[in-house]
Amino acid sequence: MSEQPPSRGERRKLRTRTALIEAAQEIYAERGDLEVSIHQITEVADVGFGSFYNHFTSKAELLDAAIAEALESHAAWLERLLSDVDDPAEVVATSMRLTGRLVRTRPRMARVLMNSPGTMLDAPYGHAAHARRDIEAAIASGRFATEDVRVALACAAGSLIASMHLSSADPAAPVDAIADQTARNVLQMFGLDAAEAGRIVALPLPTEEPPAASI
Amino acid sequence: MSEQPPSRGERRKLRTRTALIEAAQEIYAERGDLEVSIHQITEVADVGFGSFYNHFTSKAELLDAAIAEALESHAAWLERLLSDVDDPAEVVATSMRLTGRLVRTRPRMARVLMNSPGTMLDAPYGHAAHARRDIEAAIASGRFATEDVRVALACAAGSLIASMHLSSADPAAPVDAIADQTARNVLQMFGLDAAEAGRIVALPLPTEEPPAASI
Repeated sequence: MSEQPPSRGERRKLRTRTALIEAAQEIYAERGDLEVSIHQITEVADVGFGSFYNHFTSKAELLDAAIAEALESHAAWLERLLSDVDDPAEVVATSMRLTGRLVRTRPRMARVLMNSPGTMLDAPYGHAAHARRDIEAAIASGRFATEDVRVALACAAGSLIASMHLSSADPAAPVDAIADQTARNVLQMFGLDAAEAGRIVALPLPTEEPPAASI
Repeated sequence: MSEQPPSRGERRKLRTRTALIEAAQEIYAERGDLEVSIHQITEVADVGFGSFYNHFTSKAELLDAAIAEALESHAAWLERLLSDVDDPAEVVATSMRLTGRLVRTRPRMARVLMNSPGTMLDAPYGHAAHARRDIEAAIASGRFATEDVRVALACAAGSLIASMHLSSADPAAPVDAIADQTARNVLQMFGLDAAEAGRIVALPLPTEEPPAASI
């Protein structure tokens, strides 16, 4: 079955939607909320005021979509980078080391993550869902020992988000060292000994650049 | 030197201040912010509108004071309960087990803590300062092994706050078990082995009731 290429109208519609999503991500990263007028959002997106309601029924709906797409894009990037890694403990640790480095490499994406702890912990999509799958894989393989996986995820995500706040609070903060110590802490939390945790967080990181994303 | 008892005017002034602080704590616990009118705050406090400015120059100043006093009161309560505990690892773990249980025992205090993660991590007062001192004591005694103590504090506080969100998200959540697993995770994070961490989080908790606080 051949797929029709999108029509010009469809392409334009998608471009408008993407512009609105990116504007919302930008504003949310900057402010921690989307408490601005729809007019301001369409201004930042550089689209007509009326087009907002062709795509979203409310600012809350746009914000949900903007956060979901940011987290999903980050998770997909990690998954692509780590597809060849066999050790599930290394997958968890390297994901955390790369996510903590976002404060330096992609500050807006970092702020979207930091502003959305609830979303991260509960959402069935995006980073939380991927992180949970990674932790479950590490438990299943015997690499991690822990009780309730939801508590494990909360502790891992909470450690990471708080460490990213620490990294952001001071322009001179050693972002990479903070991310690596956090990953090491989380490995130990799940039963790895200090030597093994230290070995894993000293492994070379995948070198592919972050994707050319809007934030 | 004898101290003059406070005059009636001074007592009334303190009562008004306390009423404003408690109203702000109540509103902040409920809403996660203090974005209401000063009129609404003085209504909740049951004091005259004009008295607000006798005590505070702005809502932001009142909110800072309300958060600081809540965290300080919680920290003082923990310190009193744990003054006889010799093992610094037990002090850290029991503090976390009791703080996690606030979701059940003092839901408003829990929400103030959960709404104030930044404050908790950076503030020179309150829970963060006490937690940092406790972690430093455990490092100094050789019970904890960790690198940067600020990262250690971020991971411990972030784990606790995220776990409290998990406990709050579902009325049927096993609050005590979540708190205990979180404390155990944090002990392992700082180098205790699983058996020793498990022993410490199974110790009986001090039985004194939470203080009769406003929140």
